[in-house]
Amino acid sequence: MSIAILGYGVVGSGAYEILTKAGYRVSRVLDLRSYPELGDKLTHDIEDIINDKDITVVAEAIGGNTFSYDFASRALKAGKHVVSSNKHLICSYYKELHALAKENGVTIRFTASAGGGIPWLYNLKRGLLCDRIYKVMGIMNGTTNYILDAMIRDSRDFADVLKEAQALGYAEANPSADIDGLDVARKTAISSSIAFDAVVSEDDVLVFSLRNIQKGDIDYIAAKCGKTVRYLGYGMRTENGIAAFVEPTLLSADALESNVFTNNNMISLFGDYVGRLSFYGQGAGKYPTGNALGQDIINILQGDTALIEPKTDAVMHNEEAKRAYFIRTSSETALDFAVSEERVGNVRYIFTDKIGVSVMHEAAKTILAQDEKSFFAGIEE
Amino acid sequence: MSIAILGYGVVGSGAYEILTKAGYRVSRVLDLRSYPELGDKLTHDIEDIINDKDITVVAEAIGGNTFSYDFASRALKAGKHVVSSNKHLICSYYKELHALAKENGVTIRFTASAGGGIPWLYNLKRGLLCDRIYKVMGIMNGTTNYILDAMIRDSRDFADVLKEAQALGYAEANPSADIDGLDVARKTAISSSIAFDAVVSEDDVLVFSLRNIQKGDIDYIAAKCGKTVRYLGYGMRTENGIAAFVEPTLLSADALESNVFTNNNMISLFGDYVGRLSFYGQGAGKYPTGNALGQDIINILQGDTALIEPKTDAVMHNEEAKRAYFIRTSSETALDFAVSEERVGNVRYIFTDKIGVSVMHEAAKTILAQDEKSFFAGIEE
Repeated sequence: MSIAILGYGVVGSGAYEILTKAGYRVSRVLDLRSYPELGDKLTHDIEDIINDKDITVVAEAIGGNTFSYDFASRALKAGKHVVSSNKHLICSYYKELHALAKENGVTIRFTASAGGGIPWLYNLKRGLLCDRIYKVMGIMNGTTNYILDAMIRDSRDFADVLKEAQALGYAEANPSADIDGLDVARKTAISSSIAFDAVVSEDDVLVFSLRNIQKGDIDYIAAKCGKTVRYLGYGMRTENGIAAFVEPTLLSADALESNVFTNNNMISLFGDYVGRLSFYGQGAGKYPTGNALGQDIINILQGDTALIEPKTDAVMHNEEAKRAYFIRTSSETALDFAVSEERVGNVRYIFTDKIGVSVMHEAAKTILAQDEKSFFAGIEE
Repeated sequence: MSIAILGYGVVGSGAYEILTKAGYRVSRVLDLRSYPELGDKLTHDIEDIINDKDITVVAEAIGGNTFSYDFASRALKAGKHVVSSNKHLICSYYKELHALAKENGVTIRFTASAGGGIPWLYNLKRGLLCDRIYKVMGIMNGTTNYILDAMIRDSRDFADVLKEAQALGYAEANPSADIDGLDVARKTAISSSIAFDAVVSEDDVLVFSLRNIQKGDIDYIAAKCGKTVRYLGYGMRTENGIAAFVEPTLLSADALESNVFTNNNMISLFGDYVGRLSFYGQGAGKYPTGNALGQDIINILQGDTALIEPKTDAVMHNEEAKRAYFIRTSSETALDFAVSEERVGNVRYIFTDKIGVSVMHEAAKTILAQDEKSFFAGIEE
């Protein structure tokens, strides 16, 4: 009984180190690059892993959703359990991978793919054992939290902090997946799929980018209502289905999330019996994510191979989730759901009534067409 | 395969309701009182449960450590898995219960006994799969957090808030176990025993009571250093062993614990790989604790019966954990580790250098002998 790891990048090498030190046998590592320290464990050929009957668990840490899907599918078909840290893969092929695992009598685990270090998804699944979860929400992306924290703490501009985060390796050269919300949308989709037992795809999740936030917005919000800003993903049951969205969000200073700094995560579930449970820590990184992969693997090796299959596609009702918004724009579009408005020069600062989330996102398209720098944020009650 | 619940009080009845609604079969409930709604499931005789081969899991929610120990031991000897919500039982017989479980090829689980709702102990155990934990700490008692929060928020006196908490059912008629720290000491002992794989007993844990805190202390601390106060349990590895203590503690306003209000809990582990992980929610209560019992039971019914046995007794070195302290006293005892002192009338407000925890607790005995109202609090860095 041994383990194979696909991809020897940051996460794969972290998992390799952790599992090896803990006494588990990683017999094969797939990577196209060469790593002399891996000796003959290194292979460039997935067949070496698929055909090796001694390998019972395959850990996928390649990223993307092409090779990763091909390799994960073949591992499942070969009767091997699959563990993944790859939110792109899981989000793209949630149903297919679960169906393949079921067909072949194995399991698939992906705690490491969203809030891995915390460990969020594992607890979310366990939370369903005898409770009903009606909401998930939280800070799911370390890069954007690092940026917001630095902007707030040191009164700096977005672009300036982003540049620093890129230099430090906290943000990618192309930062769009983080700052435009795709990363959080995928994590929200995966979390919602588990919580509500219905597959939410990344396209179902409405997203406001964080990109347009300015130092002046933070100052205005603090002065006007004493609140701070975090970038949050939300999934919730509504009257007739599910709502899921990613938005910069105004929070009271005494909210738990307001004391989450630097690149930390905090994700919460809300259950009928347990109320609110929150999980805090390093969401990602070599060792936190490697450890999450390692834990999922060890659970499987210890015999915990239960598979929770998603029942249906989600029926989205993003209009049924209601919240108030803050808007900063120089667009002159009339907003009949505004409850207060202040003008500074040609800039309008607007607080709205509670409206459907999809109503706001629809209206935002018109406003952004007139002022592409407009900033939108939901308001947490 | 069915479940028996011992004790139909707050927790036992919560677990009964949750498990039954989730479709699990609770075939017997032991309680000396009568509950017509339980029909012939109710028994007053433990033999009905011990001798029933269909019962594979026994959930103990009686409390205390006499009947509970007798019944849990007999269930283990009869080859039944045992799940408990009872910190007194677990803390008193940690080694004995684990040894009995091992002898009889079954397991014992007690997530519900400390931070049950969060669910803390389950995550702590899972955190050990491939990481080394060097510290646990947190707000483990809802009653004292409720009292502190109300004192701080509404500038009220300890006695006044305690009376209210008693009226609301948040504090017992005899509140000593909560406000004098025994409850937190037991939870700290159990958490430390798991985290460090060495049995820490409640007597190993040094405790400063919360009882002596005054409104004036909170005001003085806020004015002097901008900090707030929470009542925390700590367990940590030291150079040569383990330290464990329970102390009112000064925290910065931006500490996560400073935004934990009312009767909520937040407990954290610190691991080599994962760094700090924190778990927040309702630590106790009918449904949160009942749900924790239910989850442990369902895990066992699903085949997860791994037992983690404690290896040794802990070697305590409470002198090796160092921290600074705040002291308010009218004792005139000289303190050579004081770094600042202010007098207001005959009251001394002292901040100390970093000293060994046991050094402070030893010195406190002399000080308390001269002024039994003296207040001691550790300072979190």
